[in-house]
Amino acid sequence: MSHKSDIEIAQAKQLKHIKKIAKKLEVDEDDIEMYGKYKAKLPLYLIDDEKAKNNNLVLVTALTPTPAGEGKTTTSIGLTEGLNKIGKQATVVLREPSLGPVFGIKGGAAGGGYSQVVPMEDINLHFTGDFNAIEKANNLLSALIDNNLQSRTNNLNIDPRTILWKRVIDMNDRSLRQITIGLGGTANGIPREDGFNITPASEVMAILCMATSLSDLKERLGNIFIGFTFQNKPVFARDLKAQDAMAILLKDAIKPNLVQTLEENPAIIHGGPFANIAQGTNTIIATKMGLSLSNYVVTEAGFGADLGAEKFLNIKSQYAGLNPKCVVLVATIRALRHHGGSPKEEYNSPNLERVKNGFKNLEKHIENIQKFNIQPVVAVNAFTSDTKEEIGFVIAKCASIGVQAVLAEGWAKGGNGMTDLAAAVVDVVENKATVFKPLYNWKSPVVEKIEKIAKEIYGAVAVDFDNKAKLNLRRIDRLGFNDFAICMAKTQKSFSDNEKLIGRPEGFTVTVREIEIAAGAQFIIPILGKMMRMPGLPAVPASENMTIDNNGVISGLS
Amino acid sequence: MSHKSDIEIAQAKQLKHIKKIAKKLEVDEDDIEMYGKYKAKLPLYLIDDEKAKNNNLVLVTALTPTPAGEGKTTTSIGLTEGLNKIGKQATVVLREPSLGPVFGIKGGAAGGGYSQVVPMEDINLHFTGDFNAIEKANNLLSALIDNNLQSRTNNLNIDPRTILWKRVIDMNDRSLRQITIGLGGTANGIPREDGFNITPASEVMAILCMATSLSDLKERLGNIFIGFTFQNKPVFARDLKAQDAMAILLKDAIKPNLVQTLEENPAIIHGGPFANIAQGTNTIIATKMGLSLSNYVVTEAGFGADLGAEKFLNIKSQYAGLNPKCVVLVATIRALRHHGGSPKEEYNSPNLERVKNGFKNLEKHIENIQKFNIQPVVAVNAFTSDTKEEIGFVIAKCASIGVQAVLAEGWAKGGNGMTDLAAAVVDVVENKATVFKPLYNWKSPVVEKIEKIAKEIYGAVAVDFDNKAKLNLRRIDRLGFNDFAICMAKTQKSFSDNEKLIGRPEGFTVTVREIEIAAGAQFIIPILGKMMRMPGLPAVPASENMTIDNNGVISGLS
Repeated sequence: MSHKSDIEIAQAKQLKHIKKIAKKLEVDEDDIEMYGKYKAKLPLYLIDDEKAKNNNLVLVTALTPTPAGEGKTTTSIGLTEGLNKIGKQATVVLREPSLGPVFGIKGGAAGGGYSQVVPMEDINLHFTGDFNAIEKANNLLSALIDNNLQSRTNNLNIDPRTILWKRVIDMNDRSLRQITIGLGGTANGIPREDGFNITPASEVMAILCMATSLSDLKERLGNIFIGFTFQNKPVFARDLKAQDAMAILLKDAIKPNLVQTLEENPAIIHGGPFANIAQGTNTIIATKMGLSLSNYVVTEAGFGADLGAEKFLNIKSQYAGLNPKCVVLVATIRALRHHGGSPKEEYNSPNLERVKNGFKNLEKHIENIQKFNIQPVVAVNAFTSDTKEEIGFVIAKCASIGVQAVLAEGWAKGGNGMTDLAAAVVDVVENKATVFKPLYNWKSPVVEKIEKIAKEIYGAVAVDFDNKAKLNLRRIDRLGFNDFAICMAKTQKSFSDNEKLIGRPEGFTVTVREIEIAAGAQFIIPILGKMMRMPGLPAVPASENMTIDNNGVISGLS
Repeated sequence: MSHKSDIEIAQAKQLKHIKKIAKKLEVDEDDIEMYGKYKAKLPLYLIDDEKAKNNNLVLVTALTPTPAGEGKTTTSIGLTEGLNKIGKQATVVLREPSLGPVFGIKGGAAGGGYSQVVPMEDINLHFTGDFNAIEKANNLLSALIDNNLQSRTNNLNIDPRTILWKRVIDMNDRSLRQITIGLGGTANGIPREDGFNITPASEVMAILCMATSLSDLKERLGNIFIGFTFQNKPVFARDLKAQDAMAILLKDAIKPNLVQTLEENPAIIHGGPFANIAQGTNTIIATKMGLSLSNYVVTEAGFGADLGAEKFLNIKSQYAGLNPKCVVLVATIRALRHHGGSPKEEYNSPNLERVKNGFKNLEKHIENIQKFNIQPVVAVNAFTSDTKEEIGFVIAKCASIGVQAVLAEGWAKGGNGMTDLAAAVVDVVENKATVFKPLYNWKSPVVEKIEKIAKEIYGAVAVDFDNKAKLNLRRIDRLGFNDFAICMAKTQKSFSDNEKLIGRPEGFTVTVREIEIAAGAQFIIPILGKMMRMPGLPAVPASENMTIDNNGVISGLS
């Protein structure tokens, strides 16, 4: 067991040159674009749809998490190490961390312990500039909108009160949530209300995640819905001729990034965190890239399976024709204690009764995955405070409902602690392969799609639509957006829209407050409860404890 | 003469791999950090102060420019090609373009015609992410300030009305000039006025340009002056423990970038545009890097010599111990016609009388350079509308005052059009070498330093200080910042603070409206007239005419 911090473990690793990692994927060094010695971009021509179809996709998701998270990224990386240990050629395909939370409470997202992707500092900071490119593309559109409001010659007559498009910044900055802009007189534009969301919440991020090519990206950018004219006509980004300039800003961001795991296996990292408010998985391009170059691809979807996995399956897999052959459900004893009624202070105190009681949360997630015609494997992400009895209970209880549960020790032991899980996953992929079945068809009516998710995945008995949501439904119909996918915005803390209902709540109703439109991404976004698109910093920001010495060695980054 | 656009010329060029360009500088490929195949970062350990001292620094500046600019970057690149043509080992060291103006009127800043640095698209867009890193470091400090205002446990008691630190974004976006933030209730912070400047106007950019090492960078970041507490105590970035996190964000941005010219000579591009509001030259680190690796370094300073060159000499060269051996003053016949009274519509109409009359502007710049004990060479940047008589007059008139003027045809012919200028520069460097003498000593009193620049460089008869400026002077004294350099903010269109006074105005007074402080950069910034820190977009933004095809080929970018 290690007492080193994540960054100390990562820094102690002697990294392989990225061209050697590319070679493991049979990619020539001339085909990659290096960003320093340990990062590279992969060109889109390496995607091979035929190869991608024949390789094996494994999705890692989790039970309903505690605020600290249950280690999906760590498990995804560790499982990839484990698969390689038992002789499979496997690549992990992950989402990119957002910079904002690195200086807040959450920290980065490059795994932990002996299951990390490296160089973790770069991955958690600017990486290869993708988030910056997304931010600039988003904010160019904002500048073009406000410039048009001010224009005498090309004015589109946009009603400033109807503008839905917000600016973004990859920073935890609560004071930018609600602002007024254009103050100070005629030279400074038209005064109006605006606000900044955090960059991963940008529709440009969603579009990048859904795009299948540069031309598709451009078309989607042009389809972004901005608001209405004073004559109530919809206005799109293409009306401002913005799509090409935005695509130019994204010309490198569309290419997936290659790095390595601590055990020198390939890791592709590209796009998409924040599954509570966005689709929360890496880009379609990255997943297909991994599947084109590797026999096994391990990927993850954010938060609990009711959010990330539901979206990965119904939105991404259905749209892109992906067929996940196995779903790994990450559970921790700590989270099971939580769902069994443990107060926060006792998360790390062994309590078999609470684990037994909390199992119902995991069981509902297992049932949900089976609704997609996929066989789950449960990974019990090991903590030092776990007891044998607690772990034994989970394994036996899962077995009793026909699901294999395996102790996963990637954090402490890297790939050596993950060979059992790897074997269980290979067993499902090779012997229990299924044909994945989405829960709903995009072409179904909007209300039917929303109700299907709420009832079958969340376990709600009914869905209420507030007046605003009903108006939004009519607008969606008028604009012809009925065939879009449903991208739910809901708390990650409960199956329901009430974060206090832990475990497996029953008999509850969810309320759709309002429904947003991301026309470029082709998402309809029902908002359940109050969702925050811009986090704040804590009383003591993580930045205060970060240091960099005169040789550039960083500490305090997690 | 070419009828191709700049981007077409640049795209037609088959680029050399950046490791081959590094080799020309005797830098091994293992020592560079590649960003794709045609860009790289140079590590700071390649700087060798001894070598740097023995090599030759040439500064390119200009007469008072017209709004379109007179081609300093084009001349700097062309001169570098010319020097290499005549057997000198020369590198051009330039500033990085700002992204905002690329979508506005001005376009990028990578030279023009057959004197360009490439890949021009990348250089003009995100390049290696330096501006993004500067933006994030700046805005992290903003978020920490607003978070502290909101904090119950660590509140520094900052008076929000005194906060001088603004947010930045690399976008032409007038509607962000003046905003109110923190609206929407207690969860969203403390309401206050704020605004966004364009990123190159950030003090973080100035600090990066002045820093000599990572430890120096950190110290300067900590010294940023933010505002006052309610008890009137000054507050610095170090009081928020921000300097290490900011330096972490800048750990790669501090390294200069290597690219190539169209003739495959090395180009180092790093930091610093906007000499009207900032110091407007590349970083000290980049200039020293060039001088460590190359016998000749050609560099430029923004706008006219009264702004960029004055700052390059008094601020940068004095601080960093640089000794520019020759100054190239770029003049165009077009600009001379302008200073001789030509209306804008007749800039391209030959008119010897106007050129004769406009020469007085160039003559004043020549005299100014000589005050620094440096011998200037005049480069007449050739335009197709120039006549032999006009060019002949400038060359003869310069000769009559002991200065060599040379026709520079870099735009049309690349290095082949610049060998005469190169020979003239080598003659000065080898035979008329001087020891550069700054105009003022940093340790002189603030008012004396300001008056020296205004009277000796601008030709003013007096300097008026508005009441606000007088208050600012007392604040500077109280805070102990008297020994800082003077970084004037003044219109680039005139020697005076009135942009209408073209040519060589005389008998005028300049007015210091207010004086800002950049304590981390060690700059005192007198504001002469109304200076804009955030440009707007034009009625038809350049973005509207940009396209990117399905293969990623861009057009309409300039």
